[in-house]
Amino acid sequence: MNPSSPLENVRIVLSHTSHPGNIGATARAMKTMGLTSLYLINPKQFPDKEAEIRAVNARDILNRITICTHLDQALDNTVLAAAMTARPRGLSHAMFNSRQGAQELLNYAQKHPVALVFGAETSGLTTAEVNKCQIIVHIPTNPDYSSLNLASAVQVMAYELRMALLGIEPPPQAPGTPASFNEIELFYHHLEQAMITSDFLDPEKPRRLMQRIRRLYARARLEKEEVSILRGILSALEKKI
Amino acid sequence: MNPSSPLENVRIVLSHTSHPGNIGATARAMKTMGLTSLYLINPKQFPDKEAEIRAVNARDILNRITICTHLDQALDNTVLAAAMTARPRGLSHAMFNSRQGAQELLNYAQKHPVALVFGAETSGLTTAEVNKCQIIVHIPTNPDYSSLNLASAVQVMAYELRMALLGIEPPPQAPGTPASFNEIELFYHHLEQAMITSDFLDPEKPRRLMQRIRRLYARARLEKEEVSILRGILSALEKKI
Repeated sequence: MNPSSPLENVRIVLSHTSHPGNIGATARAMKTMGLTSLYLINPKQFPDKEAEIRAVNARDILNRITICTHLDQALDNTVLAAAMTARPRGLSHAMFNSRQGAQELLNYAQKHPVALVFGAETSGLTTAEVNKCQIIVHIPTNPDYSSLNLASAVQVMAYELRMALLGIEPPPQAPGTPASFNEIELFYHHLEQAMITSDFLDPEKPRRLMQRIRRLYARARLEKEEVSILRGILSALEKKI
Repeated sequence: MNPSSPLENVRIVLSHTSHPGNIGATARAMKTMGLTSLYLINPKQFPDKEAEIRAVNARDILNRITICTHLDQALDNTVLAAAMTARPRGLSHAMFNSRQGAQELLNYAQKHPVALVFGAETSGLTTAEVNKCQIIVHIPTNPDYSSLNLASAVQVMAYELRMALLGIEPPPQAPGTPASFNEIELFYHHLEQAMITSDFLDPEKPRRLMQRIRRLYARARLEKEEVSILRGILSALEKKI
């Protein structure tokens, strides 16, 4: 297997899912993040119309789904399997939160198949199922209400896998040409003159007005064209005086 | 307002939502992460049975929902509003990915109300709506299929907000009191009037001047006192005309 992205090495495994709508929504959640490989273990109802509807444009994932009768089949050939669980377990697996778990899975998925295993909507994974996995992953939630929808839990993990893949880069910045020091100084000078002309600023008692103004515009990182607009407004107002 | 958690200062705003099921699923997604404050702008269908069903045990959030007819009402008193958008926009605001955006919102939410604004399922936010916000937040997705379900997008952001809360650090700078949405809108209105009075802006041919102005000041994150100074300068100039 030589996938084009490590994300294609990540299997999402849903065990004993009750609601077919959740299977469709899971397919959609996966596809939005670039995951493609979905396994079902004894789904209560599948294929199903509701799954198709909720999958929207991710029906290709439903069409390539693998249906198993036992978790062992879904974990075939994987090198790491993570059990998703909300409850603390008496078991001594390594525990990861969702972010750390995604990173750990992705490390292995660069070269090998891995699996992320989700239990039934109400009862979660059985102890026997958790014991087939090497690590436990939990999503931090509100302690008073930790009941994530199944497909929402898949969405969060698929998202974390994609974020781990991207490795978080700085965001694209606004595309305009930044104004130069000189242009900005001329603007400050222009504004100061207008403030004096209009008696807003008394040059004898300047307080710290210009300092405040500088601080404001420094935060904005003015662009060339913006300086032109601001000076244009000032000139237009001055002309009317 | 003295919420017990900064997450209670984060408003989720859904604009023109088509499917009531998504409203219920949003309430559930919010509650699992500790968010409580949901605003709807002109929902197509609400209240609704399907919303109740999808909310499961988060009906308390539906019961306390605020329904508005215009985005301005939902942003009342907020100091930072983030527009969720998948598409690149011509006049780009400061762009944050979901993780950085959540951190930025949470910094402000320690003391003040903030908002995270989601558009309609199919069409997203309008340009006018985006222009009312100070930053743009996007969730990195599969470029071939970026269509997250609305409630799933809320789930991802609510999750990132909770993760940001868990890893909380003191906010980077200790600035003045941020100006509210209302104060900033009054400033824009004042500036626009001055631009018209001085013939800098032709209301018949507004070009995209006010959009440029909004973008500039959105980046600056105006403080209360700064808005007073800017409006003071405008008033002083107007008095001389």
